[in-house]
Formats: sequence, C-alpha cells, structure tokens
Amino acid sequence: MIKADLTGALSFAGDFAPVLDEAKQTLARLLAGSAGVDGTGWLKLPEQMSAVVPAVMSAAQRICADSQVLVVIGIGGSYLGARAAIDFIQSVHYNALKKNTPDVYFVGNNLSGEHLEQVIALIGNRDFSVNYISKSGSTLEPASAFRVFKKRLTDKYGSKGAASRIYVTTDAEKGKLRALTDREGYTSFVIPDDVGGRYSVLTPVGLLPAAVADIDIAAMLDGARDIMENGQDEAARYAALRQALYRAGRKIELLVGFEPSLVSTGEWWKQLFGESEGKNGLGIFPASAQFTTDLHSLGQYIQDGERTLFETFVSAEVPRGTITVIADEALEDGLAPLAGESFSKLNDAARQGTKQAHIDGGVPVIELRLPSYTAYDFGMLVQFFELSCGVSALMTGVNPFDQPGVEAYKKNLYAILGLQK
Amino acid sequence: MIKADLTGALSFAGDFAPVLDEAKQTLARLLAGSAGVDGTGWLKLPEQMSAVVPAVMSAAQRICADSQVLVVIGIGGSYLGARAAIDFIQSVHYNALKKNTPDVYFVGNNLSGEHLEQVIALIGNRDFSVNYISKSGSTLEPASAFRVFKKRLTDKYGSKGAASRIYVTTDAEKGKLRALTDREGYTSFVIPDDVGGRYSVLTPVGLLPAAVADIDIAAMLDGARDIMENGQDEAARYAALRQALYRAGRKIELLVGFEPSLVSTGEWWKQLFGESEGKNGLGIFPASAQFTTDLHSLGQYIQDGERTLFETFVSAEVPRGTITVIADEALEDGLAPLAGESFSKLNDAARQGTKQAHIDGGVPVIELRLPSYTAYDFGMLVQFFELSCGVSALMTGVNPFDQPGVEAYKKNLYAILGLQK
Repeated sequence: MIKADLTGALSFAGDFAPVLDEAKQTLARLLAGSAGVDGTGWLKLPEQMSAVVPAVMSAAQRICADSQVLVVIGIGGSYLGARAAIDFIQSVHYNALKKNTPDVYFVGNNLSGEHLEQVIALIGNRDFSVNYISKSGSTLEPASAFRVFKKRLTDKYGSKGAASRIYVTTDAEKGKLRALTDREGYTSFVIPDDVGGRYSVLTPVGLLPAAVADIDIAAMLDGARDIMENGQDEAARYAALRQALYRAGRKIELLVGFEPSLVSTGEWWKQLFGESEGKNGLGIFPASAQFTTDLHSLGQYIQDGERTLFETFVSAEVPRGTITVIADEALEDGLAPLAGESFSKLNDAARQGTKQAHIDGGVPVIELRLPSYTAYDFGMLVQFFELSCGVSALMTGVNPFDQPGVEAYKKNLYAILGLQK
Repeated sequence: MIKADLTGALSFAGDFAPVLDEAKQTLARLLAGSAGVDGTGWLKLPEQMSAVVPAVMSAAQRICADSQVLVVIGIGGSYLGARAAIDFIQSVHYNALKKNTPDVYFVGNNLSGEHLEQVIALIGNRDFSVNYISKSGSTLEPASAFRVFKKRLTDKYGSKGAASRIYVTTDAEKGKLRALTDREGYTSFVIPDDVGGRYSVLTPVGLLPAAVADIDIAAMLDGARDIMENGQDEAARYAALRQALYRAGRKIELLVGFEPSLVSTGEWWKQLFGESEGKNGLGIFPASAQFTTDLHSLGQYIQDGERTLFETFVSAEVPRGTITVIADEALEDGLAPLAGESFSKLNDAARQGTKQAHIDGGVPVIELRLPSYTAYDFGMLVQFFELSCGVSALMTGVNPFDQPGVEAYKKNLYAILGLQK
C-alpha cells in the first residue's frame, strides 16, 4: 500500500484537522455519487475493466505476433497515461533496449512535421500496427497523424491488411470514428462515456499500449482496486494536505521522482491535477522535477526562491538497479568510503538529505512511498492520484471533471485554418 | 537575429518605459564590469572560444574515428547545455536515427542505478569514449559514474587505451581532477574560472559533445557573437518585460516551444533562470512546456487557472519538417480542407491561435522568433537568454552568478553517507 508521510509538511499547513475532516466528507460524497458532478466513471474502472483484459490481451498478442512496432496515435489523456506506464514499469529506454515485444512510438500528440518524419524513418521497413485513440476522431493532432499512418499501412499491406492492423479506442456509439471503425471492421475498444481523458489510463486507452509493452495490465488493475479498498484514507489525507497548503499560500506543487522512469509519470500527473483544478482563476500550479538531476538546476530556486512552493516526493522501497560504486585507489574524489555501496543507497541518502534541507529552507515536503515500481504499484499510484485529485478539486470549489478552457485555443486555431469546429 | 515581440504582454506590465530604462542601464553596468558581481566571463565566450574550436574539433574527430558511443558524464550546467544543443540542432531522436557520428549518452546526472545499468546495456560491445565534465571532480553523481566507466574502459582497452579515450573538461589548475588528468595524460579542456556551470554551454563543456554530434560549433559561437553585437537591445527588452510582469504579480514563467526538440532547451533555460534568480525569497519560478502537446494537459490551467502566469514562446521562421496532411475521402474527421497543407502550417496556426486565446484569458505572451533551428540560431538563443538573465536577476536584486542554496542538500547528503564535504 502507498504510504503518505505528511510529517514534513504539516507544520506549514495551519490547523489541519478541520481540513482533513472536510476532505473525508468530500471523498464520501464523491464515492456516493452525491458530489453534484458527472464524469466519475473512473471510480469503477478497477472493478469493471477486468472484464476487458482478455480482449485487450488478445489484441496485444496479435500485435506482438505480426508487428515490430506499435504506433500509438493520441494526445493528452489519450497518450500521457500509456507513456507513463511504459516508462515507470519498464524504462525510459524501453524502445532502445533489447526485448521480445514491439517498440512503441507515440505520435499525434503535437503538430511537428519533423517528429512524424523521424518516427517514419525509425519504423523503416519494419512491420507495424496502429492504435488510434480518440473519443471524437476529429481532434486535429491525432486525426492528421492518423491520415499519415493509415496511408502508410494501406501502401504496405493493402486496404484489408491495413484494416487488420488498425486498433481504434474510441466512444462506444457516438462520433465519426466509431462509424468508420464499424464500416472498416477495425478491432476496437471503448472509452467509457463517463470517464474523461485524464482519468482514462486504466481503460483500453492505457491498457492496450501497456499490454503490447509486456506490462501485466491485470496487476495494474489489482493495484488500483487495492486503493479503492484500502487506500481511500491515504488519498484523502494527501488531498487535505494539498488544500491546507494551498489555503496557506502555497501556489505551486512540484511532483518529484528520483528516477528518470518517473519523468513521464510527472507529465501525466500535471495533466490530471492541472486540468482538474485549474479553473475559475483557482488551482495549484502543477510542476514536476527529477532528482537528483534537477537539484542541480531548480535546486537553488527550491531552497531559496519565493516561498510559495511545496513538494511531493514519489519513491519506492525496492530500488531500481543493483550496480555499486567501484573502488578505485587512483581517484582522489572523496568517494573512497562509498566503494561497494549501491547507487540506490546513494539515491536514498539524497532523498533524505534533500527532504530535510528543503524543509529547513521553508518548503513543505510530502512523501509518497510505494512498495516497488511494478505494474501493481503503478496502478495504485494512478488510482491514488485520481482519488486525491477529485477530492482536492472539489475542495477548491471547481468541477474536477470538465475542461472548458481547452476549447479556447482550438476555436482560434480552427478559425485560422478555416475549419468547422 | 532574434525578434522579441512584446505586444502580447505589454498591456499586463504597467508602466514599461522606466523598467526598460532600468534594464538598459543594468545591461550597461553588466557589460562594463561595474555591476559589482563576479562570474561574468561568459560575456566574452563568443569571442574567446573561437581559439578553442580547433582543439575541440580535433578531439571530436578522434572520438568519431574510434568510437561508436560517447558517454558524457556531468550534471547541471555540465550536462543540460550539450543535451539542449543536440536536441535543438539535431533531434530528440539523435541516438535512434541513422547517422555517421557516435551516439551520445548522458550519465552522472542522477543517482539511478538502473539508468547506469541500462546505458551500459545500450553501449553493449561497441567502442566508446568518455567525456568527464566536472569543475571539482568531487561532485557525487558524476564522480560515482566516472568510477564505473573508467573501470569499463580499463577492462576493455587496458589502462593506456582507457587513458586515450578519456576526455576531461575541468578547471585549469585547481582540483583533484586536474591533477589526475595531468598525471594520466588525459586529453583535457578548460572550464574558464569566471564562468559558472549554467553559463558554460559555449565552453568545451557544451562544445565537445556538440561537435561529436556533428554540430557546427563555430556557427554556434558566431550566433552568440551576433547577439553581443546586434542583440543587446532585444535582450534588455525581454529582461525588462519579465521584470515588469514580475513586479505586476506574475510569479511563474512558462517557456514554450512548439517542437519536441525544444524540450531540453526548456530544461537548460530553467536552470539558467531558476538558479540565477531564485534566491533571497525572490525570483520568477521557471517552468516549461511543449505545445501543442501540453495544451492538452496544462492548457486548461493556463487558460483559466490562477492569473499569476506569463508565457514566453520560442519558435522559428523556417519550420522543421515538410510532411503534409494526406487526402483521404473515407475519413469524416473534418480535416478534408487541410489535405496537402504542411504540418508546419498547422503548427504555426496553433501558435497564433494559442497566443490570442491565452492573451484573451489574461495570460501575457512574449514571443521570441528565431530565423531557423540551426547551430547559429542555438548560439544566438543561448547568448540572448544569458544576457537577459544577467540583467533580469540584477534587477531582481540578487547576484545572478552564485548559487548558495545548492549546498544545503549536499551537506545533508554527505553527512548521511559519512563523507567529507
């Protein structure tokens, strides 16, 4: 189970007991469906999605059997969760490392022509399949990328072959993409109606790319279920402390991991919290960092800059990697006493030393500790953050499950391009 | 030349004229050496470093001739600039793409055992060299990584062979690493005494890894010199506007690129500004984003969250990539009118549409436009930001060239590990 250690932040948070009370009541309303908001289907995903696992696994097995590359086309919540899962559970070097499963490239998440061209070059002559993830099928970035890869599949495999290599994750009934999917006979998966993009990683949106990357998706769901059964209290405590800090003038939260593998979890987390809370002129600004790397860049600001920050550390008991510091008598670098120690031990010391230094410098530090970095842990972390986020956003006084501000730039963009929106 | 378009932010900045005046005077003092601070050697790098180019090029040619991989060991300013240059000028996919120059892996910038193990696996049996970048030679992260790769080089090539493959970039005279370098006969380069890490990308710190990655480092220096000769006014204007916005309550600056290749430029920029300005309880919090990607994650917050943000867009006139939107009659995605248009055109429309939407939503937007994404442009951008940063930090009332807060966590860390600091 995730442990939320609040001791490094409580002294900055004013009178915490009433805020915690409020968080627990808010959570109860959210779970009871009486919070007055739609879009809470993600609460039931850990339970419901078990039924979808066999179909996802079978699609993943087919992709693994006939493809060396899976191209995942999606943006925002249709992209960040799967990438976070692969990096967290496997590695940021997943594509580059030797393995028995396909490379996974993410496209359609920007409008860079170069990025598309380079992914095409990286695929080369290899066999590939496409997972097109879009609720509407008309979002500019993924829709334009799909046009490119649909043509490449058709040129390479013919229309029938292409159709057998296109996996669509979209709305159950609505939208042009569903119609196309049914017409062309694409293998397809459903994004449940009452689950917003940023809460969808435990649907086929995240599960199919993860399964292709050899991730135990059943374990991911088990971890998420564990949170629903045993982690609600921890989630409420984290949500309460965020709000108590926000009300005490802490406007920026920095999610901090101690491994490169957590960088994209930070990106997923920023969408989850930023898009849920950032409305009506309110919301904690979500930023992320990778330590110890960023201690040598943002560290100075964190230690001594404006005192409006707080940090949330995410780490695990079981370390990543076993390599140790080499003994080398010739080196007078002061490290001789560390010969034979594991890098994990150094990393752990850095975490502890940093936590204390930042607290001493006036920065509240919340610590979230996972048992390990497995699929089960990732599932726990996802459900934990989603639950905390729902509670925290409701306490902010906003609707955690809409995103009215995302339309503003699209409206201008479509007008410039002369498109109908 | 870089163009700084301030029109999207001026109306948020109060009375700008006196602040601009202050910026120009501050810049004049900085250039005249009368700002009362040390560490301004970077002002002369565009001029001075031309003399070092031949030696750097000759080392790079040797590495290219005998190595398929260059392992760059460094952290903070000894790592971020080179990575930013390679991604910006070449590509984030530089290592994965086919090319005639070595792969470049960055290690020693964290304490992740897994990261080290995986880079070792990625090197495999290939020939490699090491560029160890450290002023003191005793910083924990790079020093512990150097121990690992020094041993691997020695095991593979013997001590003499290893010594011929180790390139050290360090202090001219001081420090144990200089002593070791001289003793072992490593090829070495100098980090000038009066240039801090975050201002060092145009020294061999950044130049050697860039040159190995087939980057025209002379052009980088030319671009930087162009700023010193013709870009001072633009830099002062950007610095002035940042300060005017900060004084008007804008506490967070988001550096925004529209290409994946700019993500690591954002990381470099965050160190430059965060470490220069974030002290004495002051400083703009530096964050970065990649559009359109992050419009689908942070977009909601930017549009509607707390009104304490401002943005700085970086883009170029000459686009990256020429690929176009495919015509496909079968797709009812609303994109038919775009068939044949370049993705760059879409990306450009997104930039314009976003700028207007964010301004309308109450977010000041500064636009920096480069001619292109070449080595020359990168050199301009570096010197432009360094100049702006020096001025802006001095206007904040802090010393732009020290970093007293970075020591706090190190002290704790070394105490936990039982090391002498």
